[in-house]
Amino acid sequence: MNDITVLGAGSWGTALAIVLADNGYNVKIWARRHDQIDEINQHHTNARYLPDISLPKNIKGTSSIEEAVQDVDTIVVVTPTKAIRDVLKQVKPFLKKPVLFIHGTKGIEPRTSKRVSEMIEEEIPENLREAVAVLSGPSHAEEVCHRQPTTVTVASYNKEAARKAQDMFINQNFRVYTNHDVIGVEIGGALKNIIALGAGISDGLNYGDNAKAALITRGLAEITRLGTKMGAHPLTFTGLAGMGDLIVTCTSVHSRNWRAGNLLGKGHDLKQTLDQMGMVVEGVRTTEAAYYLSESQDVEMPITKAIYELLFNDKPAKKAVDELMGRGKTNEIGDLSDILIQRMEEEDSPF
Amino acid sequence: MNDITVLGAGSWGTALAIVLADNGYNVKIWARRHDQIDEINQHHTNARYLPDISLPKNIKGTSSIEEAVQDVDTIVVVTPTKAIRDVLKQVKPFLKKPVLFIHGTKGIEPRTSKRVSEMIEEEIPENLREAVAVLSGPSHAEEVCHRQPTTVTVASYNKEAARKAQDMFINQNFRVYTNHDVIGVEIGGALKNIIALGAGISDGLNYGDNAKAALITRGLAEITRLGTKMGAHPLTFTGLAGMGDLIVTCTSVHSRNWRAGNLLGKGHDLKQTLDQMGMVVEGVRTTEAAYYLSESQDVEMPITKAIYELLFNDKPAKKAVDELMGRGKTNEIGDLSDILIQRMEEEDSPF
Repeated sequence: MNDITVLGAGSWGTALAIVLADNGYNVKIWARRHDQIDEINQHHTNARYLPDISLPKNIKGTSSIEEAVQDVDTIVVVTPTKAIRDVLKQVKPFLKKPVLFIHGTKGIEPRTSKRVSEMIEEEIPENLREAVAVLSGPSHAEEVCHRQPTTVTVASYNKEAARKAQDMFINQNFRVYTNHDVIGVEIGGALKNIIALGAGISDGLNYGDNAKAALITRGLAEITRLGTKMGAHPLTFTGLAGMGDLIVTCTSVHSRNWRAGNLLGKGHDLKQTLDQMGMVVEGVRTTEAAYYLSESQDVEMPITKAIYELLFNDKPAKKAVDELMGRGKTNEIGDLSDILIQRMEEEDSPF
Repeated sequence: MNDITVLGAGSWGTALAIVLADNGYNVKIWARRHDQIDEINQHHTNARYLPDISLPKNIKGTSSIEEAVQDVDTIVVVTPTKAIRDVLKQVKPFLKKPVLFIHGTKGIEPRTSKRVSEMIEEEIPENLREAVAVLSGPSHAEEVCHRQPTTVTVASYNKEAARKAQDMFINQNFRVYTNHDVIGVEIGGALKNIIALGAGISDGLNYGDNAKAALITRGLAEITRLGTKMGAHPLTFTGLAGMGDLIVTCTSVHSRNWRAGNLLGKGHDLKQTLDQMGMVVEGVRTTEAAYYLSESQDVEMPITKAIYELLFNDKPAKKAVDELMGRGKTNEIGDLSDILIQRMEEEDSPF
């Protein structure tokens, strides 16, 4: 079997490395920190991110980009969004042939509003890219490492590349569907963190399951509106990378964004919340990016707007939620239906 | 304000009566049992179904069908599916003018596969029906009674009737959307109980959140396939009466169907499970109905089929789930997309 390289040894990068190792590949996993790499190679653990997990012996760590990427056909990119351009700039000089890039990073670049696959396409010249694919879905890393049943979607404009990625990752515990809607899969994965903040806020206010289910449902509707305007297929948001991932993130107390929202709902302001969390809460930056996107794309996103006002303009949580409940009477599917019919009527629609 | 009558004084009927009473209507609530009606009228409680809830004084109970329905313009039907035809046969002789029927019952009639609105249309002659509407969504009755934020959908082919029902129920805590896809709203509400059984089975097997999110997502996809084949609009299933209700039912340990599934997942057979539950588990009958519908309509429903095999053919739970995970590699949105395009191309589509 060929070697596969995973860039990024956080919990998700490590989990994907384990899936590939289980499937018989020799996996090279890259991280910047030497002590972390030493731990992976000597003790076959990555305890800071995944306590209690033993790594298969066919996962080898390296902190050298050159060693990581030379001669590989496939690179799996799982670094944080803000590190991606920098890491790829380091990768580029060592590539000698076209490589299949598969990424598992959920985010949107602030200011530029670029998706991760767009960043990869900008940093790696076309003659060094076989294709770019995105892997996303409802997948707590810990459960993947415990070989519990998990399903994900792999999307690429290149159908052959999507099938190749599916073949690499699929096994009895890890079921992989293909899709060709790269935009939808990336937007769904990134924007779910906004709604996870909202779900935490609702729970922090001691509202019930009815309110949270409404928030998740209407939240997905506004993500779908924005995503569709940006070129995604609306049905992608009903799939694993949309609804599936949203459910996992909004109903698990392990979700970082849910926990931050919960503190906000209990009355903490943004600074207090982030101090108490002590780590990056992606949903905060994503809310800001999506708010500006909704303005520039002229898409109504009342939940995103309410969370934006709460985060950055000190609107009290209860007032924000109550205003959402008090909006005018509307038809549930009217607006989305219009978009859908319009999309279906476009002759060059790939769907 | 006119009087409104609610038929059925279980937890959901009582919750809807409270919403209407909060909105200023004089509400008559009908139940068969005299002691329950006496309790409602004397103590303003309905403790068997809703302990700790005080009913507003403008809710009056009656065990007389004649007293309940004479001279009212609107009847809200919330009896169990299997009692509906019998109750409506008793109602019919006392109607003297066309009445707006709004129902909140989630089920499908076994053998006939009729939806609840179809049963109403069959039992009440056209000249005594102003219109039929269905109210559905993510709504634990207890939370509605505690005035926690809740959203629902009201659907009717008669747009005026849908708006009228919306006006009756909407308030600051209870947000009502309109829709005109009666089939979709009814199918979503009924079939979610199958997936709730599945979610309980998955949790009973100690599978994780990834597996449950996948089950909910793929479960909604197969409900959408069947519903669309039966004439529903696919987008309805992404709304409150589809995805929203499904999330509440599958992620709450209070759900009766989830609890039954959990026992099945832990290795009990159907008889042991039903004995231990000691009450009707609607999802069991619905699984049977949906299984036969999927066969007659030629719609692929692998999750429904797996649960049917487990319930009625003693297939072990783990084997059923593992077979679902091991299915062939498929494209995530292909089949649904085909149905959708076909629907959109039909010129007489009301959407």
